[in-house]
Amino acid sequence: GGVVETLFFPDEKLPCRNNRKPGGCHRPHCDYAHTPTSLSRFLDYLGSATRTLDICVFTITNDDISDVVLELHKRGVRVRIISDNDQAHTQGSDIDKFRQAGIAVRQDKTSAHMHHKFAIIDGRLLLNGSFNWTRQAVTANNENVTVLSDPTLIRSFQQQFDKLWEMFK
Amino acid sequence: GGVVETLFFPDEKLPCRNNRKPGGCHRPHCDYAHTPTSLSRFLDYLGSATRTLDICVFTITNDDISDVVLELHKRGVRVRIISDNDQAHTQGSDIDKFRQAGIAVRQDKTSAHMHHKFAIIDGRLLLNGSFNWTRQAVTANNENVTVLSDPTLIRSFQQQFDKLWEMFK
Ligand SMILES: [Zn+2]
Ligand SMILES: [Zn+2]
Repeated sequence: GGVVETLFFPDEKLPCRNNRKPGGCHRPHCDYAHTPTSLSRFLDYLGSATRTLDICVFTITNDDISDVVLELHKRGVRVRIISDNDQAHTQGSDIDKFRQAGIAVRQDKTSAHMHHKFAIIDGRLLLNGSFNWTRQAVTANNENVTVLSDPTLIRSFQQQFDKLWEMFK
Repeated sequence: GGVVETLFFPDEKLPCRNNRKPGGCHRPHCDYAHTPTSLSRFLDYLGSATRTLDICVFTITNDDISDVVLELHKRGVRVRIISDNDQAHTQGSDIDKFRQAGIAVRQDKTSAHMHHKFAIIDGRLLLNGSFNWTRQAVTANNENVTVLSDPTLIRSFQQQFDKLWEMFK
């Protein structure tokens, strides 16, 4: 108990966006993945949030991931995001997009790095590992995300999240 | 079962090196830590290896960690290290030191990143998280290392290690 699975990257292909919509993909020569990949599994876990999603990730520039987060926010899931300030204004950062949508975002204001890459889903699942939420990390880098359900572990990461949330107010 | 503990960084202080030696520290105004820190716990886990230590970490520049790895190698523990080539020749990288000591080191030769930060101790413990093995990560960055003993999880990371070990031959 406590360990759900591990997702390893790189994926060979990015998941097909049409395939995630009702009706699926009908492009004749679609080059994207139509069977599960590490990213599609990752998106499924994120998308399973029904109440809360606490995100504490160094960089977020992956639009497939951001779209799921924005959709959860629209559905009424309470999303909170902690990210690193050094990364927030790099090209493609989705932090501004989150803020504009009304999602609560806080940032490490120091010169040190808020280097975590974890998320807590409904206080029930922890995603954690080496994986920054970027496009490059999906199809190029060697990365891992462990999916864990151990209550003691989740409690310690929740405490860490709450501590940083206060610290970066 | 399966989850041993989580180490969160930053530590306030680096652990006192004298304190790790027999007899302890006798410096009158020693500024280093003499009680357990996340790094000292981390070093204790690494140092508990008796047979094998498989390391797959993006950057290694922390001499406290390197000293433990070199000592294990001297004691006859079979150490294998996978690291990223982009980082191996940056200032302070300990990769050359490991090679000179006779430790087997392999590197990602691609422009993508081997971005993992995990180690498997005696096939019995997995250390994994956001923590690169650098000095900055210890006393400045917000980082985590989970210490896990779940056999299925360790098997999947061992398979990943073995796959990369072959790939980077
Ligand atoms: Zn398609
Ligand atoms: Zn001392």
